Amino acid sequence: MAERIGEFTVSLSSRPTVWSSAAVVGKKEGEGPMAKYFDAIFEDTRMGQDSWEKAESMFQKEALACALNKAGVAPSQLQYLFAGDLLNQCTASAFGLRESGVPLLGQYGACSTMAQTLAVSAVFVDSGAADLCAAVTSSHFCSAERQFRYPLAYGGQRTPTAQWTATAAGCAVVGMGGKGAHIRDICAGRVVDLGITDANNMGAAMAPAAHEAIFAFFQDTKTTPKDYDLILTGDLGVLGHQIVTEWFARDGVDVAANYKDCGMLLYDIQQQDMHAGASGCGCAAGVLCGYLLTEMEKGAWKRILFAPTGALLSPTTTFQGESIPSISHAVTIERIS
Amino acid sequence: MAERIGEFTVSLSSRPTVWSSAAVVGKKEGEGPMAKYFDAIFEDTRMGQDSWEKAESMFQKEALACALNKAGVAPSQLQYLFAGDLLNQCTASAFGLRESGVPLLGQYGACSTMAQTLAVSAVFVDSGAADLCAAVTSSHFCSAERQFRYPLAYGGQRTPTAQWTATAAGCAVVGMGGKGAHIRDICAGRVVDLGITDANNMGAAMAPAAHEAIFAFFQDTKTTPKDYDLILTGDLGVLGHQIVTEWFARDGVDVAANYKDCGMLLYDIQQQDMHAGASGCGCAAGVLCGYLLTEMEKGAWKRILFAPTGALLSPTTTFQGESIPSISHAVTIERIS
Repeated sequence: MAERIGEFTVSLSSRPTVWSSAAVVGKKEGEGPMAKYFDAIFEDTRMGQDSWEKAESMFQKEALACALNKAGVAPSQLQYLFAGDLLNQCTASAFGLRESGVPLLGQYGACSTMAQTLAVSAVFVDSGAADLCAAVTSSHFCSAERQFRYPLAYGGQRTPTAQWTATAAGCAVVGMGGKGAHIRDICAGRVVDLGITDANNMGAAMAPAAHEAIFAFFQDTKTTPKDYDLILTGDLGVLGHQIVTEWFARDGVDVAANYKDCGMLLYDIQQQDMHAGASGCGCAAGVLCGYLLTEMEKGAWKRILFAPTGALLSPTTTFQGESIPSISHAVTIERIS
Repeated sequence: MAERIGEFTVSLSSRPTVWSSAAVVGKKEGEGPMAKYFDAIFEDTRMGQDSWEKAESMFQKEALACALNKAGVAPSQLQYLFAGDLLNQCTASAFGLRESGVPLLGQYGACSTMAQTLAVSAVFVDSGAADLCAAVTSSHFCSAERQFRYPLAYGGQRTPTAQWTATAAGCAVVGMGGKGAHIRDICAGRVVDLGITDANNMGAAMAPAAHEAIFAFFQDTKTTPKDYDLILTGDLGVLGHQIVTEWFARDGVDVAANYKDCGMLLYDIQQQDMHAGASGCGCAAGVLCGYLLTEMEKGAWKRILFAPTGALLSPTTTFQGESIPSISHAVTIERIS
């Protein structure tokens, strides 16, 4: 049974468990510091397909297959897939998962999708609506570039605040009674929009949403940063990470000791020339489903707070002069023993 | 507590209730046979905005405000909004609801979104994660036309199988203990794709998904069409409705007596020259949140099966020669007394 423990936070006493997780990535991600944590690194980021969009679907398909394999579970044992991505009409998910034969409830939280799909999976398992389900998401540098920015062949210059969309997909299988880490609390965020209009500075646009969600979570749970071995945002990058750190310092809350951002972990930012860092649904998904859950299982951390953010814009809203509404959803993940 | 009663269906013994619902529509919808059931009819379908996309956001905002008003509930009493739409990156929802101050979990089920948001709302309420939440969706003829088909000014000819995207938004407030109808069972569908590639014949593309979901639901619940006063699909239109009816007849199941499609109810198809009927998330949402729930309350029907369908395509996937994956989610709604 879920229990509301504050204005934004729900605690799941049934403690749904991550049975398994998998992260599959592209060439560039496989050249970064997280390489050893990935279940597959695809040198051909086109995945043998004739479009980047179809390639992204293949990444989702592979991530699901890999996570199911690790859990020793057949697709037919899943009752729901909660999945989403950045492509128009979430087609990476619909096409990537269409042959799975599992009911699909599409989720859209932009780059916060990994937390959203985990949270919704956990509530469905908690309620008894599902015994076992999977949370899946992806992004692909090439499909994102041409949809949100420029044709790849144009070779557009990137600003110093720009981030690099990760080519990656992550999947977590969630159910009752597994051996993995628990999903303990979920805290869904509101839309936050402070009027940033620079679509090349997503870190600044999304940082306030992360700050609000994490702050609300601390208030609701009466905990402090010290109660978590690690606090993770999803793809704020160097600038967004700095803003969140400063805003918490202003509040008198010191997060500096254990606050990291997946967008700063996925690549070697200097060596790989990544400007402000990584972005995309696949960034937080790859880092969580690869690095974080693997290291948690080995005992690196007991309790983490995972709070990726999403920028809820579209190219159309940017053309129409709109600012960038952002959102962040937080989940706590805790090792049992 | 949710109980799985079959491969696809979950029964919610806690019986989350629709506290209130509202439907707001555009001029053409206000000229159709459902006019008296709408909470607002906006003659200016631009809603005083400078773009159709912003207008669609306004429809969502109005639907939420209206439903909250009817329930006598303030936005701050809602714990979640489950909302989605057809625009790229679901921006009608993000922008329309950004000032509400309510946590948002974006849903993407194309034109099945009204059922999906109701189902997820019901599970969250059932689990205790939410006391009160709202399911919201919309579509707008003009924003959909220019995104999926042609610029409006081009005046493209429509094929006889084409449908007309409804300009409408619907909202249902869902919680425990209200006086309205219950959400009793939910049945989430799988992606069904039989290879239809004609994006102007959505009814044919989506009919198999509706057939599969409704068939699975009857099997899981051991019920027949006679157990429901009304069976509703969302926007299959004249052709899709005919296919579903024929496929059930082939199975030896007679649905003809009480099976209707919202896409055939929203407009006077002959009089308003609507070709195969209405479509869009707003079609099923407007008919459910306006006509169906109002007439249920008055006693017209005791138990309805609401199973809208979604076509999970994008213009990009169509350009790339892909077929149209479709999905259908079913919920049963039952009057208490």
